[in-house]
Amino acid sequence: METPDAIRCASVLSIHPGGIEAREDELAVEEPMEVRVLRREGKEWVAHSLAVTMRTPGHDFELAVGFLFTEGVIASRRDILDIHYCAEHEGEAPRNIVNVVLAEGVQVDPARLSRNFYTSSSCGICGKASLELVRALIRRPLADAARIARDVLFALSESARDAQSLFARTGGVHAAALFDGHGRLLLVREDVGRHNAMDKVVGHLVLTESVPASGTIALLSGRASFELVQKALVAGIPVVAAIGAPSSLAVTVARDFGLTLIGFLRDGRFNVYAGAERLDLAPGA
Amino acid sequence: METPDAIRCASVLSIHPGGIEAREDELAVEEPMEVRVLRREGKEWVAHSLAVTMRTPGHDFELAVGFLFTEGVIASRRDILDIHYCAEHEGEAPRNIVNVVLAEGVQVDPARLSRNFYTSSSCGICGKASLELVRALIRRPLADAARIARDVLFALSESARDAQSLFARTGGVHAAALFDGHGRLLLVREDVGRHNAMDKVVGHLVLTESVPASGTIALLSGRASFELVQKALVAGIPVVAAIGAPSSLAVTVARDFGLTLIGFLRDGRFNVYAGAERLDLAPGA
Repeated sequence: METPDAIRCASVLSIHPGGIEAREDELAVEEPMEVRVLRREGKEWVAHSLAVTMRTPGHDFELAVGFLFTEGVIASRRDILDIHYCAEHEGEAPRNIVNVVLAEGVQVDPARLSRNFYTSSSCGICGKASLELVRALIRRPLADAARIARDVLFALSESARDAQSLFARTGGVHAAALFDGHGRLLLVREDVGRHNAMDKVVGHLVLTESVPASGTIALLSGRASFELVQKALVAGIPVVAAIGAPSSLAVTVARDFGLTLIGFLRDGRFNVYAGAERLDLAPGA
Repeated sequence: METPDAIRCASVLSIHPGGIEAREDELAVEEPMEVRVLRREGKEWVAHSLAVTMRTPGHDFELAVGFLFTEGVIASRRDILDIHYCAEHEGEAPRNIVNVVLAEGVQVDPARLSRNFYTSSSCGICGKASLELVRALIRRPLADAARIARDVLFALSESARDAQSLFARTGGVHAAALFDGHGRLLLVREDVGRHNAMDKVVGHLVLTESVPASGTIALLSGRASFELVQKALVAGIPVVAAIGAPSSLAVTVARDFGLTLIGFLRDGRFNVYAGAERLDLAPGA
């Protein structure tokens, strides 16, 4: 999964019960990336800088597209005319600015970006505002999926770990993986930022015109926050399973929008926080 | 450490080798919080909304102050006249907007906030821009500290875990803890967001006029990213120890600015990525 840009070596002192050792260690690369959208306004081309994220290089176009999609800026691949790295700064900052050229008629309304949504929300800033935001972003309700068997869930984390090469080398990244309802791995993306890993998965779905991703399961290597559940909902992913704990707002949003949310999926156990009707929990199922 | 607002109960289905069980689970609360600064411009009071963060309620004023300090908006406690929750929305969204009233003469320059710094940086967006940002924020070089003994480091994670009550109950939060050079715990803060946990620690230091925090050690429950190292540098914390891995940019910044950076501090081991001269690594030290 990793690109040559995703790992950097550093000399370290390793202190352990056997003594002290100087050696080379592999680090997950963290670099800023800026997402810009370009669109025609009359006869002019206008560029807007929409976000800067600290990310691990690799699958940058997926990251940009997943961000724009889950923030409601674009609705499908058809809203994108072209994606390229900004050439302007090529000498000094290669591949750290992604330009997304939008089709005519696509509106860029900064007030629709979630950060701005909150600050302009009439009810002030609260859990209720968060739910309104999700409602505004979701284009269609989640489709019902075939029921997923308990043993399929138990097997997920193992197959994701097998596919997670960057993590195995650096121990320093988050992963988001997508499976079909039979537990077959569809793709896995890694990043120092967990929102970025999920945005890369969603961006892949948008670019391959696979949204809504009905019948799929997203596996998260860490905890399930509000924003990760929101991204799954916007992409039409009906089941989110996290190795770690969910937050209170993640559970609230999952219940309100009919998403199946699983937490603490490890060591032959898991908890179901919402949407148990999509699961077949009988032993041996 | 937790406040009553920091934990919420939810009914879950727990699936484990022994069967299926319906029970109550404790979740870490995640709610948005907005930071607003108020200042006088001539005869008018003007409010700016500077940030919205998803956070775990508790120590909200520390969080607001730590954010403003590490972003360079305020330089000390003297720049703050008052901090209060916004009363305007009290009915619907209690305690989710923090107003920080700034002293006369404190400039709010949105271009100095890190997100905007990146997008307006002349060299484009790159690791170099990140280093320039840190340089602009650091007011003084790190003081040299007495050398910290190897066994002090080994003992840190255990004493932080003892103090981390929210994590023990929910499994769903990050922690940042501060120790003196002898390994005595000074404070620990928890949050669903790891930047927030660190901002709360730094905010406490600012409010108690303990910046620069010379001779202290910050322990991070997760990974060490660029932004966490940046926050330590701005607060004058000379040693950062993470239970998880550091990112490439965290190591680069630590080396450039003379901070001691330790990673993978667990199971009787750790790696030193930068600043080994502050440590006494002899066995039994």
